[in-house]
Amino acid sequence: MIWQDIQRIRAEAPLVHNITNYVVMNATANALLAIGASPVMAHAIEEVAEMASLARALVINIGTLSAPWVDAMVKAGKEARRRKIPIVLDPVGSGATQFRTTTAQKLIQEIHPAVIRGNASEIRSLLRPGPGAKGVDSRHLPDEVLDDARALSRSAGCVVSVSGPVDLIVQGDAAARVANGHPMMTKVTGMGCTASAITGAFTAVNPSPFQAAAHAMAVMKVVGEMAAERAAGPGSFQHHFLDVLHGIQASDIAQRLKMQGL
Amino acid sequence: MIWQDIQRIRAEAPLVHNITNYVVMNATANALLAIGASPVMAHAIEEVAEMASLARALVINIGTLSAPWVDAMVKAGKEARRRKIPIVLDPVGSGATQFRTTTAQKLIQEIHPAVIRGNASEIRSLLRPGPGAKGVDSRHLPDEVLDDARALSRSAGCVVSVSGPVDLIVQGDAAARVANGHPMMTKVTGMGCTASAITGAFTAVNPSPFQAAAHAMAVMKVVGEMAAERAAGPGSFQHHFLDVLHGIQASDIAQRLKMQGL
Amino acid sequence: MIWQDIQRIRAEAPLVHNITNYVVMNATANALLAIGASPVMAHAIEEVAEMASLARALVINIGTLSAPWVDAMVKAGKEARRRKIPIVLDPVGSGATQFRTTTAQKLIQEIHPAVIRGNASEIRSLLRPGPGAKGVDSRHLPDEVLDDARALSRSAGCVVSVSGPVDLIVQGDAAARVANGHPMMTKVTGMGCTASAITGAFTAVNPSPFQAAAHAMAVMKVVGEMAAERAAGPGSFQHHFLDVLHGIQASDIAQRLKMQGL
Repeated sequence: MIWQDIQRIRAEAPLVHNITNYVVMNATANALLAIGASPVMAHAIEEVAEMASLARALVINIGTLSAPWVDAMVKAGKEARRRKIPIVLDPVGSGATQFRTTTAQKLIQEIHPAVIRGNASEIRSLLRPGPGAKGVDSRHLPDEVLDDARALSRSAGCVVSVSGPVDLIVQGDAAARVANGHPMMTKVTGMGCTASAITGAFTAVNPSPFQAAAHAMAVMKVVGEMAAERAAGPGSFQHHFLDVLHGIQASDIAQRLKMQGL
Repeated sequence: MIWQDIQRIRAEAPLVHNITNYVVMNATANALLAIGASPVMAHAIEEVAEMASLARALVINIGTLSAPWVDAMVKAGKEARRRKIPIVLDPVGSGATQFRTTTAQKLIQEIHPAVIRGNASEIRSLLRPGPGAKGVDSRHLPDEVLDDARALSRSAGCVVSVSGPVDLIVQGDAAARVANGHPMMTKVTGMGCTASAITGAFTAVNPSPFQAAAHAMAVMKVVGEMAAERAAGPGSFQHHFLDVLHGIQASDIAQRLKMQGL
Repeated sequence: MIWQDIQRIRAEAPLVHNITNYVVMNATANALLAIGASPVMAHAIEEVAEMASLARALVINIGTLSAPWVDAMVKAGKEARRRKIPIVLDPVGSGATQFRTTTAQKLIQEIHPAVIRGNASEIRSLLRPGPGAKGVDSRHLPDEVLDDARALSRSAGCVVSVSGPVDLIVQGDAAARVANGHPMMTKVTGMGCTASAITGAFTAVNPSPFQAAAHAMAVMKVVGEMAAERAAGPGSFQHHFLDVLHGIQASDIAQRLKMQGL
């Protein structure tokens, strides 16, 4: 099933519209190209609805948000929603500042993402706003957040994909786990944002957001693991990650993947 | 002639002012440094005219445009025009949204670029606005667009440089073609934007925009071909591209270049 | 002492809040992660004070400034100042345009940075505004600017860190010099911005801004030298730089460092 999705992405090169943060735009565009999708970045209020309408998935990431960008995210999201184009929301840094938390909550309410993908503290902040988050890299064991992910999945009516040492993908009662990966992935900026972008590519070809989200995390983690084995550090990791993502084969996934629940 | 231009770029390190998109700023700055130019990125309306006046070329790229940036592009462009500093325009995504198409057309009319560099669907959109474009990566054989490039060159009064499997550089009746390159170049974001930035560096040292544009595409394609031979995928391609661009020698170009019409 | 600082950064992963330019956001975030710090980028006026209050250092870089960003820099800086969080200011391009020079001067007056880190022409422009600067890459021998650095250190009441073939770190009468490094470092965009970000990480763990600034430049130069020895050009230099920064050991510094005055 994962391999089928990858083959479809490579064959169809779905356009994935990203409204994302400045830090990772280049990295996520390159990851989308490496897996075979067609990325486009556009954020101007004048064009986001039109661009979203051309896309097969919309990825919204609040990593370096500002008020005009939030307006554009809402406009693009509403157009995508109207056209049944799946939306992936990455609430980067939700919980760190009030502006991020309230923006993430507003987006969930107004654009109804198909998948919310974040780390444990971001997911928690969307249920229980308050202090405790530290920037964008907080990590918790996913089992600690299963309840939170379930609660958010039910209240937001969408898939919740939580990255961590073990990734957790939840939709109501269903839960999948991906146990691959490598600590090096936490030493490169934007791996979470890349996971969200790749999730967008999978939602473009797989009608089940739950499967799409799980498949995306499976590919991220297997590729990250393979890249880390080849890397001398977080610098070389980055190019190995793209090389492996571009060249990944069915056997790589078959031999390595440690996924439960799907 | 190409080699003479490269030697001048290396010796003179011309300042190239870029008003470009967020996705590629780092990549194009590094490409300009690798070939020997001095990049500067500046987009604030308060400083663009002053910055443009210090530069020897201005590169305008609408890849992630918004209204304040368009104002700055016009202001910088008019100052560059007044001072006879050559302008390269990259109409990224023209044809994908109305905002991009009308902005590209407005820029052509108001700042009179010396070179318009885009892909075939972007060039076509500037002549025949309408549906059909898909994002920023549409590809057509350049022969199919020779008529379009000629028509745009005549109506805009400038060189038109169309990238594709074979690059096409047109000025009125004159046409040059560059047949090098590698498909890997389409798997890295911003290769077109880098071509536009490098074109800017060549216009800074070569008084013929037609030659400058052709020389720039020749270098891009030879370097891309050499980098692809060394690369294991689109990740490692990126650093090989900069390494090769930095170390390119006259013999590399002499032995490999497949250029016609110049 | 340098090694002690690095160990503390690795152990404590201090949050470093960056309001920096678009070109280098990814590179500086990755450098901060590689040395062991936790980077966050945030620039919205709605959240900068709250984000700064969570951080242990604030790095402000005017490389692609615009008016709304300047307002955010002032707001974040005042909050950091109020909470005694050290601020590093990188006046990128000061002297090139009036907007940059006056913004850098305004920031010095209003937020009182602990460290100003720039190149010689940027430092000079803060004392003697006027023509002469060329973009962001002007280089002068640091001895030529010792007087300027001293004068700025006294008038601004802070450490002045001047990068060049030999780095110069000045606080009043005290002066340290770092003589390592490699010319390849000038062929990669954002090495100066990375130096400023790394300086931020050191100010987070070392209460002496003078020591922190000198230690940061020492690490930058030793790592740059080691990376250049491994690199085939400015492309591969970038990943070697992050790999070496991530893996640096006490013996690397002990064996290589050429520092005077500390």
